[in-house]
Order: sequence, then C-alpha cells, then structure tokens
Amino acid sequence: MANGCYNLIPNKDFKIRKVIKSLETSPIRKIANTAIGKKGIIPLYFGETDIPTPSFISQAMKDALDQGYTFYSVNQGIPALVEIISKYTSSLHKKNIAPSRIMVTSAGMNALMIASEAIIDPNDKIICITPVWPNFMRCIEIMGGEVIEIPLIYSNSNNTWKLNIEEIRKNIKDVKAIYINSPNNPTGWMINTQEQMEILELCRMNKTWIISDEVYERIVYDRNVAPSFLELTDENDLLMVVNSFSKSWAMTGWRLGWIIVPESLLNIFEKLNEFNVASPSSPAQYAGITAINDGEDFLKTMINNLRNSRELTINSLSNFSRVILPFPEAAFYAYFKVKDVHHSEKFCFEVLSSTGVGLAPGTSFGTGGNSWIRICYAKSPDLLNQAFEKLKPVLS
Amino acid sequence: MANGCYNLIPNKDFKIRKVIKSLETSPIRKIANTAIGKKGIIPLYFGETDIPTPSFISQAMKDALDQGYTFYSVNQGIPALVEIISKYTSSLHKKNIAPSRIMVTSAGMNALMIASEAIIDPNDKIICITPVWPNFMRCIEIMGGEVIEIPLIYSNSNNTWKLNIEEIRKNIKDVKAIYINSPNNPTGWMINTQEQMEILELCRMNKTWIISDEVYERIVYDRNVAPSFLELTDENDLLMVVNSFSKSWAMTGWRLGWIIVPESLLNIFEKLNEFNVASPSSPAQYAGITAINDGEDFLKTMINNLRNSRELTINSLSNFSRVILPFPEAAFYAYFKVKDVHHSEKFCFEVLSSTGVGLAPGTSFGTGGNSWIRICYAKSPDLLNQAFEKLKPVLS
Repeated sequence: MANGCYNLIPNKDFKIRKVIKSLETSPIRKIANTAIGKKGIIPLYFGETDIPTPSFISQAMKDALDQGYTFYSVNQGIPALVEIISKYTSSLHKKNIAPSRIMVTSAGMNALMIASEAIIDPNDKIICITPVWPNFMRCIEIMGGEVIEIPLIYSNSNNTWKLNIEEIRKNIKDVKAIYINSPNNPTGWMINTQEQMEILELCRMNKTWIISDEVYERIVYDRNVAPSFLELTDENDLLMVVNSFSKSWAMTGWRLGWIIVPESLLNIFEKLNEFNVASPSSPAQYAGITAINDGEDFLKTMINNLRNSRELTINSLSNFSRVILPFPEAAFYAYFKVKDVHHSEKFCFEVLSSTGVGLAPGTSFGTGGNSWIRICYAKSPDLLNQAFEKLKPVLS
Repeated sequence: MANGCYNLIPNKDFKIRKVIKSLETSPIRKIANTAIGKKGIIPLYFGETDIPTPSFISQAMKDALDQGYTFYSVNQGIPALVEIISKYTSSLHKKNIAPSRIMVTSAGMNALMIASEAIIDPNDKIICITPVWPNFMRCIEIMGGEVIEIPLIYSNSNNTWKLNIEEIRKNIKDVKAIYINSPNNPTGWMINTQEQMEILELCRMNKTWIISDEVYERIVYDRNVAPSFLELTDENDLLMVVNSFSKSWAMTGWRLGWIIVPESLLNIFEKLNEFNVASPSSPAQYAGITAINDGEDFLKTMINNLRNSRELTINSLSNFSRVILPFPEAAFYAYFKVKDVHHSEKFCFEVLSSTGVGLAPGTSFGTGGNSWIRICYAKSPDLLNQAFEKLKPVLS
C-alpha cells in the first residue's frame, strides 16, 4: 500500500486542471517507490539524515501534550516561538529581524507554496536557479506560473558551479520573481555575498521578488551559517526567506518551518496560513522552541559527523574512474557526473537493480541533469562504505 | 505578539496578487484578536471544544517519538493509517472505501486547499452552500475561482434551514464544482439522503465535482454518523470527501485529516501532498491510528456532554426575547438571529466590550448573516451558564 502503488491513468472525464495532470512525478520518488519494501536496499535518494530527532526535542513535544497544548494556535505561530526565531535569526545574521516579519509554517515546503500563492498569477514568469530540488519548481506550476530555468554554470576546467548573473540580467525584466536555493540541494553550491548583492540590485531596479530558500543555512563546514539575503536587505525589500526545522535539527517528519516576509505583509501571510493549514501543529511548535534554544550542541555534533561523511564520500567517489564530482561546499549531498551516462533515470534504475543502492537521478533537478546523479551522504560511515563498495563496479 | 497585532496597510509597491490582497479577514478572527489576552473573556467564537486531546491519543504520539518515527512519511500517509481509515469509513458508511482512494492530509483545511488546487482554474465558478465557515470559500478564491453562494433557505414559519435545490439546478451548468459542508458549520443543518441524491443526479448529468466537507459527521445526536455522499457514489464519481481528526477526537491543534478521491486520481493527489506539505506529521499519523482504533468510547462520552451543552444552550437562548434559534441538528454550534441587529460584526464587538463574551458574527459565513450570530457550545455547562448570564441583558 506504499506510495505510488496506484499508478493508474487518470480518466479523461475527470475535470482536473491541465497543469495539475501534467505535474511531473519526481524521478526520485519513482526510484524510491521501486525500492521501498525490498530487502537489502541502501537508500541514498532522499534528503534526510538517518538519525531520528534527538530526544530533548521530542521531550518538549511530550511536555506540551501533557500540558494540554493541543488546541489551534494563532496563525502567526505561538508568540514564544516567533520570538525565539526572531532572536536566533537576528543573532545568526547580525541584523535585527523583528517578530513582526516572521510566520511559522507547516515546514519549508508549505512556506514556498504560500509564497507562490501570494505572488504568482497565471502565466507569470519565474526564474529558478537550477539544478534545484523538484518541489521548488512544482509549487510555481501549481499556481499557473511559468518556470524559467537559469542553470548554474558548470565549469569543466575548475570543476565548480557558478551563478549565471548575465543570464539573470537578461531575463529579469519579464519576471515576477527569482527563486533561489542556497546552500543548494542538490549541488552543495553556496551563493556568496557579492553574488547576492548583484541579484539584489537587479531585483530592486526591476521590483522583482526574491524568494530565498535557506533551509540548509546551518549545514555548512567552513563557517557558522551561510550568507543570507537577510543580511543585505531591510523590511521593505521584496524578499521572502524560507527556513525549516527539518535539516538543522533532524525534524523532517515534524513539518515545521518558518517564513520571513516584509513587515507590512504579515497580515496577508497570516490569512494564507489560515487558509492552507490554519496553523502549524501546536505541540510541534513547542518542540521548535526547545530545538532552537537547546539545539546548538546537537547541531555541532551533527555537522562534525556530516563533515566526516562528506570526506569519505569525496574520497570514495574520486576513486571511481567514471565520476566527476564538483566539490560539495555545503548541504549534505554529492552531485556528480558519470561519464557515458546520458539517461540518469534509466541508469539509476539499473544501478538499483544490479547493486541495491538507491540514487537520485539528475533529471529530478531541472533540465541538464541527464548525466548527473545525487546522493545524500547524511548517513553513517558504515552504510556509506557498504554503498560505495557496491557502486564500485558500475562507477569505475 | 498575538495574531493580528501587525495590521499594517500593505505597501502598494509590493507585488501581491490582487485576489490575495482582497482576501477577507475573518470577522471571527477580528473579534478574537481583540479579545485574546484580555482578562475575564469567555470565548465562544472558535470552533473547538475546551477539552485537550485525550491522553491515550497523546501517548501514541509519545510512543512514536520513542520509536524514532520522526522521518518523512510516504505522500499517501503511512500505510497502517490509510488502512484503518479505510476500515473505519467502510464500516461507518456500509460501503467499501478502498485504501487506494484515501490520502492523509495536514488537516481538513489542507485537504480543501489541495482539492481546490486540483480542479480550480482562474475564473472557474464554484457553488458554495452557505452559511458556511469562511475558509471554505477563501481557498477557492486563492485559486482564482469565483464563489457563487447558494444560501440555505431559512423558513420563518417552521424555523428551519433547507437546501435550495432549485437554485442549484439553475446554476449547475456553469460551474466546475459544488462545495458543501454537512453537518454544517455554523447552522448545525444536516443534509438528508434524498437531497444528496438530487445533488448527485444534477452533478452526474453535468459532470460537476462535489467537494463534500464531512468533518462533523460524528458530531450527531440522533444517530451514529451523518449521511455521506460516499454511500451513494462509487469510485468513478466526481466526488471528493474531506474529513479530519480535529472534531471527532479533540485534535484541532494536531493538523491531521484525510481526503477520499476517485481511485485513478490518487497519484495526482499524492503529488499535491508532496508539493504542499510533503507529508503530514509522521508522529501525528501514528496517533491517528490510535484515535480511530480506540477512540469510540471517548467519542460517545464527548457526544453525551455535547448533547447536554446543546440542551442547555437551546433552553437558555429560548428565554431571550430577541433571539430566534433554528434547531441545531448536528455539529456543535448554535446559529441564531437577533432581532433588530443589522450589523452583526458591530454587535459582536459591542457585546464583547459590554459583557466579555466573545461571539462569532454571522457575516463571517457568507452574505445574509447581518442579523445572525454563532456560538460554539462545546464548552462546560459551567462556562456556558456564566456566558448566558452575561448575555441576558443584551439579548433580552
């Protein structure tokens, strides 16, 4: 009964919107649906760590339940959580981000959906910097928007990713918004402050929205936090920043995140929260307070483990003759090119079948991913070693 | 810092969609925002009971946390929950509802939003049977749909609500869907099987969607469950039924519900779940299994208490000379007309100020509510008695 078992063709008589009928099924989900339930599979396809939420965070939810915090919350999110997000963000980015700009959401995903509902009219053009996780583009399409992909430039010579600011400049006049995810899933690319300033300048001149998905801002290895658009802007800029508890505190299954918006729009976003999910889970919100207040030690340990996993991954993959891996600067993915692979989805199905290792095809992340593969390395060294041992014959 | 404290006028330069800018703020929220935080207020405005979630359900979530069920779930919802919803629904309505038609959602609200995303193109006309809870209409408007209200007919002579099937017949040809909420919030009206058959016949002839919000199906006093469109239809009808854990098991703050769709569309709805919230809270889903499996005794006790509160409410209100109360057949609201009141929102603000009792203005529920007021009677007899004592001077 798992997801995807009922892959019937929709009856033509069902009046479903054309854009909804043609929403792409994520190739990641296709691979995962084939793999889930089978024995001996090593799943590296999804974007989550293999450690459950730490118990001090779970305990906070248990306490909230015991105290009877099981009623609707206010649309903005419970005041104590909004307040702590404000302090946390202000301190991280050395910029005052008032509680009046913050709304708690049912995870980063719903924050992106709500942002899209707020600004995208049918046929609006939206720039997406790709490669990028698939849902990022799909919520734009649900609102009838047209995605204009502006891929990062992959440089063969120095094996790195780079923002294509020229292409953004060429397209910015016609677009309602630019959606950007940095630190980036899948490439690990991280935008720098100079590039952020260039985008901001273009967007200010053209009154273009910046929708910045910064959920991996703490999954960084050479600093405390990734550069944020918050540092360069004020409360009147056309900027929304999406964040989440999922990645920093191993809370993927909780569905809790937040969005930072221009202050005068908070009231509109509260209404959108109301009409989407009413308010995020009340007991989860209490756990969110504890995650931020007491979660720094956990985060430090997790980053150390991730750093080791990253090193192991880079070393292993660099031994495989068919693999080209640009250095994954941040987040917890390795996104690599495989020589002589031209249909990454087909290749991932073959690898799953012959080795039992579940990979995510590059075609999931926009056009241009035909030779590319993503793995999530947020796993134990033991599991990763097993995976690379199995992958050796197909990637060498 | 509570909801609504930042009621600034959005800057005209912010490129927010016109339809989003003009989304109505619920008058209920306006009253509540004025009341919350003040001492001595008796809040009868929101639609929830005053009892926290029973501990056997909370315990199931605690157990799920201890077992490390804190990861993403599949988009359809965890198989064991989908299975139990299938059994529960099939048994309640004496009709086989296969797991392949069921998707778990982040509450009934998100199920309605997802349903609206699936079918509503800009300018589509949608019939809403009113009075109805405000969010019901707002999710249609977010998708660019046009709400055509078809009010229940209030009969002065026998003081009851009745479906206006003739008006539905007149309008059905031009509409994409009919949205109906029965048992109804705010009136307590409950559609009967004959009326459901008439609507179904019209919708089948015109290939019109029925979106049926049945979240109060168990909040009934003269039977076990309210009539459902599920009983009259099969898996190929253009029917979506929305349900929730919120009302039956006192789980409003948990954000957990489900939607039943035509079988061949499940795959599309799984994608919409993915792109809206990914999947509902994993630990909450485990609690949902327990709620359905072990919740019947709790539900029986709650209904007995609600029946007493309803009787108390009817008796008290009937003593007030200005009040006309149609019999509230189901759900947990009393929706009554107040003689010589023509601006119910203004009246509710006056009542709040002079008595401290928080009421919900009839204008929240569609046009025609200018003389009407809703209270939620899902409160203790003691609190209700206090409220009616305070309301006596203004309603007599």
